Amino acid sequence: MSGPTTAVYGFHAVTARIRHHPHSIREILVDQNRRDPRLKRLLLAAEERRLPVNVAKVRELDQLAGGRRHQGVVALVDSRSVLLDLADVLDSIDESALMLVLDGVQDPHNLGACLRVADALGAHAVVAPKDRAVGLTATVEKVASGAAQTVPYLVVTNLARELKAMNQRGIWTVGASQAASIPLAKCDLTRPVAVVLGAEGEGLRRLTAHTCDELVSIPMMGTVDSLNVSVAAGICLYEARRQRQVANTAVPEP
Amino acid sequence: MSGPTTAVYGFHAVTARIRHHPHSIREILVDQNRRDPRLKRLLLAAEERRLPVNVAKVRELDQLAGGRRHQGVVALVDSRSVLLDLADVLDSIDESALMLVLDGVQDPHNLGACLRVADALGAHAVVAPKDRAVGLTATVEKVASGAAQTVPYLVVTNLARELKAMNQRGIWTVGASQAASIPLAKCDLTRPVAVVLGAEGEGLRRLTAHTCDELVSIPMMGTVDSLNVSVAAGICLYEARRQRQVANTAVPEP
Repeated sequence: MSGPTTAVYGFHAVTARIRHHPHSIREILVDQNRRDPRLKRLLLAAEERRLPVNVAKVRELDQLAGGRRHQGVVALVDSRSVLLDLADVLDSIDESALMLVLDGVQDPHNLGACLRVADALGAHAVVAPKDRAVGLTATVEKVASGAAQTVPYLVVTNLARELKAMNQRGIWTVGASQAASIPLAKCDLTRPVAVVLGAEGEGLRRLTAHTCDELVSIPMMGTVDSLNVSVAAGICLYEARRQRQVANTAVPEP
Repeated sequence: MSGPTTAVYGFHAVTARIRHHPHSIREILVDQNRRDPRLKRLLLAAEERRLPVNVAKVRELDQLAGGRRHQGVVALVDSRSVLLDLADVLDSIDESALMLVLDGVQDPHNLGACLRVADALGAHAVVAPKDRAVGLTATVEKVASGAAQTVPYLVVTNLARELKAMNQRGIWTVGASQAASIPLAKCDLTRPVAVVLGAEGEGLRRLTAHTCDELVSIPMMGTVDSLNVSVAAGICLYEARRQRQVANTAVPEP
């Protein structure tokens, strides 16, 4: 039980840890004033795995999370603990999946910005192919403003195979392409979806585009050729959240 | 008629020049193969002001625009020619105004990224207060990918006064604030609007927020505190364009 620990914080990240890598957790700290259903579910999951849970003052949690938003829950985990995979992520979520797939984003600033957007708009993971990905460098972590610790980043060997694996788990894969005739807003993003973005300028690789279930376009009205990939990610994830909000409002729970 | 010239390209930029600063134009070049109503309107405006218009090959236009999208129209203008102001911009547009106001974006990368987003999603101008703005430096121009030449950038002395001037021209001013209870998607952005964004982390200044007609929030679901300002701009302008598209589809022209 020795060695360096890292603070993992926020509900997504801590829940994924509890379910899939409980042995990597040394301690879970929760806000002493928080008592809501979401926290209760998390505590139940922790109890089932006999993980040590303690209450803490908000100030303490703030400090552990480096001043970033922790939603009242922080897990101290073994710094060397294993990475998550797709099944880990999908098993840990209790809503329609929302994944962000980056096909060829090799600039650390762009990856950091995409992780930050993914965190802000509630994407469950960011996926990238090993041969065209960048690692979680210090630059990535800095630009991500803490999101590198909260959003699972899955680096996969074969992206086309991973997209097919997503299909088998019921996820609709939607590639963004300027050549597509279907506008983003016309695509049903309330389903479990993976939004697939290519590198700026280059766009999706041919095989990746071919593997996607559907290709959609973001309206481009001006003279520039493309959007920054983090802006495109923000627009696609925003649109998914907007549609889901509308769907939730239209169909009240029974 | 001597001195250095600058290429201004794309319909918005060239139309604004023709209407408001015709004397700054040395020559207008149009794609020899293009013959559509939008171009005809532009040519009519140029003819009224007796401006020299010539046809050119696409390759020539590409070269003048530095390889960026020119939509088949390039104006060669006096490099020292005057800046546009709010009235110039509003008089030059023939649709519901869509302005992007940046209250305190002082990082050149962020300004460049905002100009690029504004161009891509058809904002008619970017407005910033003099005391908290950055100039159009080389870094801004590089990051903007050509949008610094196509989107009017208005630096104003008193932002609150400018927002009131917009009101007088029938523009609804909408500030983005995390404290706001109205979600972005619930705000009617089909009206003439100005989207007002603060600096990252700091948000809108108190006076600016107070001057806005309405404050709205972008849904934040994760642990990070804020979005990058260009991502926020992308989401707000996308939402405006989406709503306008829906409105156009729902009410066919008589």
